[in-house]
Amino acid sequence: MGIRTPFAERFSLTYPILLAPMGGIAGGRLAAAVSNAGGLGLVGGGYGDLEWLETELALARQGTRRPWGVGVITWHAGIEAVNLALRFRPDVFFLSFGDPRPFAALIKDAGCALICQVQDVDAAQQAKAAGADVIVAQGTEAGGHGAVRAALPLVPSVADAVAPTPVLAAGGIAEGRGLAAALMLGAQGAVVGTRFYACQESLGHPSAKRRIVDADGGETVRTHMFDVVRGYAWPAPFTGRALRNRFTARWAGRDDELARSLDEERPRYQAAAAAGDFETAVVWAGEGVDLIADVPSAAEIVQRIGTEAERRLGMASGLIV
Amino acid sequence: MGIRTPFAERFSLTYPILLAPMGGIAGGRLAAAVSNAGGLGLVGGGYGDLEWLETELALARQGTRRPWGVGVITWHAGIEAVNLALRFRPDVFFLSFGDPRPFAALIKDAGCALICQVQDVDAAQQAKAAGADVIVAQGTEAGGHGAVRAALPLVPSVADAVAPTPVLAAGGIAEGRGLAAALMLGAQGAVVGTRFYACQESLGHPSAKRRIVDADGGETVRTHMFDVVRGYAWPAPFTGRALRNRFTARWAGRDDELARSLDEERPRYQAAAAAGDFETAVVWAGEGVDLIADVPSAAEIVQRIGTEAERRLGMASGLIV
Repeated sequence: MGIRTPFAERFSLTYPILLAPMGGIAGGRLAAAVSNAGGLGLVGGGYGDLEWLETELALARQGTRRPWGVGVITWHAGIEAVNLALRFRPDVFFLSFGDPRPFAALIKDAGCALICQVQDVDAAQQAKAAGADVIVAQGTEAGGHGAVRAALPLVPSVADAVAPTPVLAAGGIAEGRGLAAALMLGAQGAVVGTRFYACQESLGHPSAKRRIVDADGGETVRTHMFDVVRGYAWPAPFTGRALRNRFTARWAGRDDELARSLDEERPRYQAAAAAGDFETAVVWAGEGVDLIADVPSAAEIVQRIGTEAERRLGMASGLIV
Repeated sequence: MGIRTPFAERFSLTYPILLAPMGGIAGGRLAAAVSNAGGLGLVGGGYGDLEWLETELALARQGTRRPWGVGVITWHAGIEAVNLALRFRPDVFFLSFGDPRPFAALIKDAGCALICQVQDVDAAQQAKAAGADVIVAQGTEAGGHGAVRAALPLVPSVADAVAPTPVLAAGGIAEGRGLAAALMLGAQGAVVGTRFYACQESLGHPSAKRRIVDADGGETVRTHMFDVVRGYAWPAPFTGRALRNRFTARWAGRDDELARSLDEERPRYQAAAAAGDFETAVVWAGEGVDLIADVPSAAEIVQRIGTEAERRLGMASGLIV
């Protein structure tokens, strides 16, 4: 079985399911596991720690013979990280959050497919102009960094704006119903993040995975405060969606005050993060957490999403009178 | 042709498309037109002007022999408005924004189906406990009042929480791709608002309809300010999604200051609203405005959404290998 779209065919996928390149979470072992299960696994380059990236890229490269890829935070990435990643010959390179033009030619000249993630229609058109082979329309319900528009209306709008460039949907997709819906919206596949955070191969802390399992979708919030305390100067319009905790309650509406308290707050935050104290440290998570109730293997997640989407798609024509 | 779900069958609908009961916009003529086209038309009771309501209910009652209904703002509605509406023998009664319990028994005892619109999973469970026959999961992308959770992950979460009670999706659905996606998410139909605002039979001002046609999805904002200036004390967590204009730019982040300036600002606002000056007056609209490019008849909209959804659903099984 499997789900066929032009995007899935291009990368020989059984199911058009991409692992979101979650920084520090989507390591090489997880990326390889997703690719081996018939999805497309991406290593999350995050803020560009070159040693970490080299280790994880090697694990992905060695871990799968199927197509795989890597993603970086565009505004933060350096040319060293991009060149390092390209040396491992990934099949796809995923750029999100910023202008893709500084890296687009380099990536495409290396024979690597360029996937650009965007959060609005204007950025989609810019990504197309920059040479994107595939465009991801990311809704505000997504975990981690993103912006304000919701996926259900954004995906068809982006698909119309960049046709015939293939579009994928991201945001709040944690199971087969979401993938089937994405395909009906005109997407050729779905990017899945939070669901893979809470899987066995993810590099997330076990306590963070447990929090995702326990949380409901009303317990997430889009905020700057984790960027402020960590010292990352994210440009507008990006904020990060995370689980609410004591830290978000304490600093709600007080980004400026937090910024003035960093001498005290940053060491405290770093200690909490090191200790796995997620009442202070961030757990990036999307509104799909309602739909996440366990910590299975990555292969099991790919299989579940794929077969449930198949089941829904198979019933669709039966709805027509 | 048509799309069959248990909800559609219960009300003999050709397509499971509900007209959102937009206050002051969804009058009796529009409701009847949607029902006559094979959808389910609802008169929008809004803030409960009894004379307006009686006129519009009579138009709906006289305008269609098919099932139709009425909706009110639950926290604001008085028992007089509910009783008045029930005298016109609507087939469905749509309660949104507040505790449905004060009216649930009255509505159901009148033989009228009770549809409750909710914005999160807890409220869905409360609506089910109150006796709702159908529950609408409304995403933040919806125009007009609503809350923060996005539809793509909310709809399946609500469907799981209240099964086997039928669920409809609302928010950002303006065409057939959205309806097809809603059905894949586990909904039995879709509530459509903004798309019908910009139709011939809607009571919206022609300039407001033109603004919806011209706007893109990034031009909407969720705000309290139009409630503040009009003097409606909406309870948490509800805000209204509207098109950005000079008024929203001027008062952004200054709700409190606006509240202190009402002696001057309210008459100015009311004059603008009366004059059709939508640089000051509100145009409620959802993020689906990207997908709206004309002002057709209501019947044409039902037909377009329905046939496009049929086309997408009909192709779905072809995606399976």
